[in-house]
Amino acid sequence: MIIDIHGHYTTEPQALHAFRDKQLAGLADAARKPSSTDLGISDETLVKSVQPQLKFQTERGGDLTLFSPRAGGMAHHVGTEKVSLEWSRICNDLIHRICRLLPDNFVAVGQLPQFPGVSPKNCIPELERIVSELGFVGVNLNPDPSGGMWTDPPLIDRHWYPIYEKLCELDVPAMIHVSSSCNPNFHHTGAHYINGDTTAFMQLIQGNLFKDFPTLRLVIPHGGGAVPYHWGRYRGLAQDMGRPPLSEHVMKNVFFDTCVYHLPGIELLAKVIPVDNILFASEMVGAVKGIDPTTGHHYDDTKRYVDQLKGLSEQDRYKVFEGNARRVYPRLDKLLKKRKEQR
Amino acid sequence: MIIDIHGHYTTEPQALHAFRDKQLAGLADAARKPSSTDLGISDETLVKSVQPQLKFQTERGGDLTLFSPRAGGMAHHVGTEKVSLEWSRICNDLIHRICRLLPDNFVAVGQLPQFPGVSPKNCIPELERIVSELGFVGVNLNPDPSGGMWTDPPLIDRHWYPIYEKLCELDVPAMIHVSSSCNPNFHHTGAHYINGDTTAFMQLIQGNLFKDFPTLRLVIPHGGGAVPYHWGRYRGLAQDMGRPPLSEHVMKNVFFDTCVYHLPGIELLAKVIPVDNILFASEMVGAVKGIDPTTGHHYDDTKRYVDQLKGLSEQDRYKVFEGNARRVYPRLDKLLKKRKEQR
Repeated sequence: MIIDIHGHYTTEPQALHAFRDKQLAGLADAARKPSSTDLGISDETLVKSVQPQLKFQTERGGDLTLFSPRAGGMAHHVGTEKVSLEWSRICNDLIHRICRLLPDNFVAVGQLPQFPGVSPKNCIPELERIVSELGFVGVNLNPDPSGGMWTDPPLIDRHWYPIYEKLCELDVPAMIHVSSSCNPNFHHTGAHYINGDTTAFMQLIQGNLFKDFPTLRLVIPHGGGAVPYHWGRYRGLAQDMGRPPLSEHVMKNVFFDTCVYHLPGIELLAKVIPVDNILFASEMVGAVKGIDPTTGHHYDDTKRYVDQLKGLSEQDRYKVFEGNARRVYPRLDKLLKKRKEQR
Repeated sequence: MIIDIHGHYTTEPQALHAFRDKQLAGLADAARKPSSTDLGISDETLVKSVQPQLKFQTERGGDLTLFSPRAGGMAHHVGTEKVSLEWSRICNDLIHRICRLLPDNFVAVGQLPQFPGVSPKNCIPELERIVSELGFVGVNLNPDPSGGMWTDPPLIDRHWYPIYEKLCELDVPAMIHVSSSCNPNFHHTGAHYINGDTTAFMQLIQGNLFKDFPTLRLVIPHGGGAVPYHWGRYRGLAQDMGRPPLSEHVMKNVFFDTCVYHLPGIELLAKVIPVDNILFASEMVGAVKGIDPTTGHHYDDTKRYVDQLKGLSEQDRYKVFEGNARRVYPRLDKLLKKRKEQR
């Protein structure tokens, strides 16, 4: 089974964008607020909207995608905390409906109603709702709700502890994923995303988070940002700082996905990062949409790169494509086992 | 000849630190200002202070290091513009003295008196002084003088054009190098440095800077941040944005150094980045000081990694270790030719 752990709903119906415009317009002029949170999107429209993802899934040989709201769309820095909550619930509900309509293709991962300067504790009710009531198997946690201003504390600060406690209690992992950037220095998918990944990993080295939360699991997307390329730097910095080897200090709890859009990058990832820490993902339809003229295939067809890896045993292949995902997302594993029994 | 294009003066005499303390203390209490900018550091003390660098240079088989003030020490965000200017002149003067005392080992690269929110135009007098009067062959340009707040405009903004004009006129390259971070999210050498590199490269993709400055040469240190690892992402983003291929759009003007502290990283760099764009560097004594237990050698002994590259022809090796440096830093080339003639 091929599980893609990183897909966003980037092909939303126009009605969702229209709602968001009205919601934000309502901040300036209350008369423009949306009259209802019912978007009037039919099941048929939802199914139609994800045909691009389904087409790629089939063509590329994938089976199941962990599907979450558009990362750039979370925009936690926009509006108010109340706006963020309303927006998160609506986005999560759409994901939930898609995953019920197409349960063989999509399993739900959620968005949290974060807001800069506000305790992540306030996200707990929505986290409980999507996991306990709606059956979501994971969640995206934005390490920079300010959208490129980086005004909240680092991930190792106690500020974040309430959400970690709840993640451990619910036994769901978080993907550390920034949203859009309102800082003109940071192109969102070209700089802010990758910087967010790199920054988060270094924060984890600096702290001792997994001593306090030994069962917490964090997925760092986009192949871990710059980390595998600079693996020597990170091993060396940890060593200079008197931290234990990374294998003990962070790599029991931190996982990287395979959203790296060329073969040499995936080869490096597989060479330096233990296979138990690598989870297959493509983030399609996402950051890079084009076809690589040097291969004739989409840049984000990452399965092709993993398939080309030399020296990956059948057991390793199973781990990257399925086993690690089932281990890191235990609620996904339970769901798949239950479905198998029911068939 | 083995030229290391990236070394900082990280072993400064205590008198320099004492001066800096007094200088900054003077902001709060004018009575504590240093009485003089003469630090009273003897030539003997200077030569003694760089023995660690000389030892590594010899042991590792290097010949010459392009030597600049400590990058983290620039701290452009601290104090006032006047403080930044006084500090830059003092740091540059020390570098100048070391390079005159040990001309076979060190060639000078400078620090600019940048200050957040202030036009880089104000750095031109110091740039002219160090290049035209003191013979510096390059300069470090901080893309984020705010020290991790990223409040100045991106590098492609006209804000930066006066300094680019002068760099072109003087025919000296700039290394795009951030300084220390006052944002607790960004560990300086583990996140801010690498993010700065990644951010700068993406800005260059977004703009069209080299159409306006076809002879401008920018060196992105630390192996180009995350860029080579995500080379497919950057090629794909440029393509999606309708930019020319990176080879035409930026790679005639942008160069990466080899400050990547493990062999697989250097292998990736050499695989995806054209050899004409790679310049040997180690940044010793710098970010990572320890010995890699998996090799028994210092993490930052990057020459070992380059030496182990398979498929690097003698011509390519010459380019990485010497030829590219002489091309990117033409004043270095002139200096070396002149010295050869004089012998």
